Amino acid sequence: MKSELLYGIHPVSEALAAGRRRIYEIYLDKDKKSGRIAQIAAMADAKGLLIKYIAAGDFKTPTAASGHQGAAAVVSPYPQVAVPDILKTTQGQDGKHFLLMLDNVQDPQNLGAIIRTALCVGVHGVIVPKDRSASPTPAVSKASAGALEHMRLVRVTNLVQTIKLCKNSGIWVMGMQKGAAQSIYSADLSGAIAIVLGGEQKGIRHLVKANCDFLVSIPQQGTLNSLNASVAAAVAMYEAFRQRNRD
Amino acid sequence: MKSELLYGIHPVSEALAAGRRRIYEIYLDKDKKSGRIAQIAAMADAKGLLIKYIAAGDFKTPTAASGHQGAAAVVSPYPQVAVPDILKTTQGQDGKHFLLMLDNVQDPQNLGAIIRTALCVGVHGVIVPKDRSASPTPAVSKASAGALEHMRLVRVTNLVQTIKLCKNSGIWVMGMQKGAAQSIYSADLSGAIAIVLGGEQKGIRHLVKANCDFLVSIPQQGTLNSLNASVAAAVAMYEAFRQRNRD
Repeated sequence: MKSELLYGIHPVSEALAAGRRRIYEIYLDKDKKSGRIAQIAAMADAKGLLIKYIAAGDFKTPTAASGHQGAAAVVSPYPQVAVPDILKTTQGQDGKHFLLMLDNVQDPQNLGAIIRTALCVGVHGVIVPKDRSASPTPAVSKASAGALEHMRLVRVTNLVQTIKLCKNSGIWVMGMQKGAAQSIYSADLSGAIAIVLGGEQKGIRHLVKANCDFLVSIPQQGTLNSLNASVAAAVAMYEAFRQRNRD
Repeated sequence: MKSELLYGIHPVSEALAAGRRRIYEIYLDKDKKSGRIAQIAAMADAKGLLIKYIAAGDFKTPTAASGHQGAAAVVSPYPQVAVPDILKTTQGQDGKHFLLMLDNVQDPQNLGAIIRTALCVGVHGVIVPKDRSASPTPAVSKASAGALEHMRLVRVTNLVQTIKLCKNSGIWVMGMQKGAAQSIYSADLSGAIAIVLGGEQKGIRHLVKANCDFLVSIPQQGTLNSLNASVAAAVAMYEAFRQRNRD
């Protein structure tokens, strides 16, 4: 079976906690005595997993800068789910789907940061196109502080088809568009929704935008008028979260 | 006079636009014909500034990875302002100060990201302690996409004294504290406020916390429960922005 190498304290410990991947072997820094490393060792022991203690220099992470933090794990590939699975399983939660679609988010750091926030607000699934998007790699797991290990991320061939599928399931599809006349703060995000976000450079593609039910913008003041992609995502997701959890 | 080297398209162009620093000379990549570079050249020409066209390899930025993007400028140090200046000048805006205090934010990337968002929501000033905090370096200007060039950032010796000064000026001081019983969404942020945010690792120091008028948390769901520092800052600032701009 194919495998990949997760690295970093959070990806390894969250993969252990989430239990979604097979974990073939765990590498820990033999000279590092931190509480976090000990915690990973304890979790791995409890599951009967193979632990290899190695020197810091022997970690085979992509680059030295990628920061293994003394922990890595050979694991099965990121678990696949399909859009219908997400639509089905969240129906139990009174049908109020809360989904995120990302178009053109190509920076693994941004994708990771967005997934981290998405998990904190209870997003049920993140949908990205197979093309023109970062994919759920170990680097993204690292950038997400391990949130990727818990989140359901689906790669689809055609985002427009997925939008249509969502609309047919009674989900409102809201596109985030800089300069859109309607403010996100005047939109109703309390029902079943999918938030569509564009990437760092290009925003949402034209055809994707045309298929959204409505477009909103995040109001801004001042001379610069440019939010970072992961900040814009957080502001949008937290406004939905706020509305959905109002008494 | 002391000088420093700003680098990157945004820091250089926003320093030109803001007009707060003296600009001694501008370096542009002689082989790069982008619209952004041309725009900087036009702005510099209009101000009668010295432009030197050099090869990409001749930029003297701190590291190759720091990314000069073909533009750099020798400029006067980041302009100093004092807390009373900020308190005074914002009184004209119906006294509704909107300030941000950062305790223990040590990562220049995080400081830059926070300043970028602060500018987008119209924060009047950012206050950081001289110790245990990143300072307004060119790296921070880069990380802020040039927002630092427009924002007033004040370094203070004693953050607790500054909090007292703010309280005496009728400003409510709200500390962001993970796990605080009150949610930010039930707090009134529509008046004169200062939001106090902790850093990546340690949060707000005890004595700073003790001097806040009240503490609030950002509600979170799920297993991970850890927002990135710049995301938490954005969510807090945007909730204040939303409340302050409600009709």
